[in-house]
Amino acid sequence: MNKSELIKKIREKKSFLCVGLDPDLSKIPSHLHDAEDPIFEFNKAIIDSTRDFAVAYKPNSAFYECLGLDGWRAFEKTVKYIGEDHFIIADAKRGDIGNTAKKYAQAFLQKLPCDAITVAPYMGEDSITPFLEFENKWAILLALTSNKGAADFQMQSLQANSEYLYQRVIKESQNWGTPENLMFVVGATRPEYLKRIRELAPDHFFLVPGVGAQGGSLEDVARYGMNKDIGLLVNSSRGIIYAGAGHDFAVKAENSAADLVKSMKAYF
Amino acid sequence: MNKSELIKKIREKKSFLCVGLDPDLSKIPSHLHDAEDPIFEFNKAIIDSTRDFAVAYKPNSAFYECLGLDGWRAFEKTVKYIGEDHFIIADAKRGDIGNTAKKYAQAFLQKLPCDAITVAPYMGEDSITPFLEFENKWAILLALTSNKGAADFQMQSLQANSEYLYQRVIKESQNWGTPENLMFVVGATRPEYLKRIRELAPDHFFLVPGVGAQGGSLEDVARYGMNKDIGLLVNSSRGIIYAGAGHDFAVKAENSAADLVKSMKAYF
Repeated sequence: MNKSELIKKIREKKSFLCVGLDPDLSKIPSHLHDAEDPIFEFNKAIIDSTRDFAVAYKPNSAFYECLGLDGWRAFEKTVKYIGEDHFIIADAKRGDIGNTAKKYAQAFLQKLPCDAITVAPYMGEDSITPFLEFENKWAILLALTSNKGAADFQMQSLQANSEYLYQRVIKESQNWGTPENLMFVVGATRPEYLKRIRELAPDHFFLVPGVGAQGGSLEDVARYGMNKDIGLLVNSSRGIIYAGAGHDFAVKAENSAADLVKSMKAYF
Repeated sequence: MNKSELIKKIREKKSFLCVGLDPDLSKIPSHLHDAEDPIFEFNKAIIDSTRDFAVAYKPNSAFYECLGLDGWRAFEKTVKYIGEDHFIIADAKRGDIGNTAKKYAQAFLQKLPCDAITVAPYMGEDSITPFLEFENKWAILLALTSNKGAADFQMQSLQANSEYLYQRVIKESQNWGTPENLMFVVGATRPEYLKRIRELAPDHFFLVPGVGAQGGSLEDVARYGMNKDIGLLVNSSRGIIYAGAGHDFAVKAENSAADLVKSMKAYF
């Protein structure tokens, strides 16, 4: 999906909601455990009930890999089930030297029909550019993440320009990709930084995790992060997919997604 | 495998060779393409022919993921085929927030019988500590990598102590792990830094990629990186596994591994 198609979907739905598909066998409703593929059954129900509200889905590879082959099968089935009407982000946070990064790009953007993959910046340019070479596909680069550990390195001040490492990542990577194929991960838990980050990257989309379970506020994110194209994909995982734990989990998820999108409509 | 067992294996074999299992369908001998699982057949032959020389194997997950389910199956079979006599490193370079990192740790250190997994430091402490909680298992943290892009962020000078980011990573992470469960990735292509890195982490093992195809020298690595326990796992991937491309590829791989280990014996 290219940028103008994504913006069109966002405007049509008046939603910039991304639903994080992080299914955990210990948390999904017990009645699903008897299914042949409990993880896929859970995702399927969540997708069906949130499809009208979400513009994007973000399955995180960790929650599938920990189940071995069964997990990978569920990941594949999930991505295919989502289909072409939604923007699909493989939240995989990969990063390796050039010839290896190319293989990861093939895995998620070619072999699997994902639109985007999250990538880690530590290894620099040649670890990122292989993800930028696929038409209408995206790399989403970690910039300032939502977790406590973001302070350890991302927020270290550099000697050059007295800027933080995450600012350097955002500036430097704009030499590699464009607002048409590169987005940034910016955590909702640090809204005070969002304004400065938006100034650094006025035209790029931001993937914003951390609303909900991690404590970030939609209002702050919209106030400081939005641009003329909206420019945001706000992710909620646990707040939606675990809104309920019983037979009505999909309805609860739908209600939770609907509530979030209702709040989003104010910004259109 | 714990540290003293690893050191014992290294001393017994007079080898600190790690063989990188990065099988690429476009590079493996054509006669293997008819096998039911060409990737596994290739790995099996490489493992059988290098087993006496290597102390460790390092399959890189990218080369398996790009083949989808078949690739993951080959990864699992490969790790199991290597067995308990060798130190097994999942070269996966994972890194995510705490609850997600825990799932990656389960995937590679529990569900799969790997001894270690490579991890990326960008997201800080809570993205690394979940990998340090398994007995006799290891996290191998990217510090200074062998690729050109290492200069982009890893070698940025920080205001605090005027140190490079990679130095900060090595110092800070020693608050999280010990020489018994934490190693560092230090590229062979930057031997001039190895001496300083060894001073920063005198007792930690280093995983050193970049000897061979990437241009690093074993002599420099040994001179600057070795400690009283040897303290090195020097990886060669392409230089061994693609030493030959015909029916005798396994013999060529054996010869290449034997040559490298012959050079290593001088350091015992």
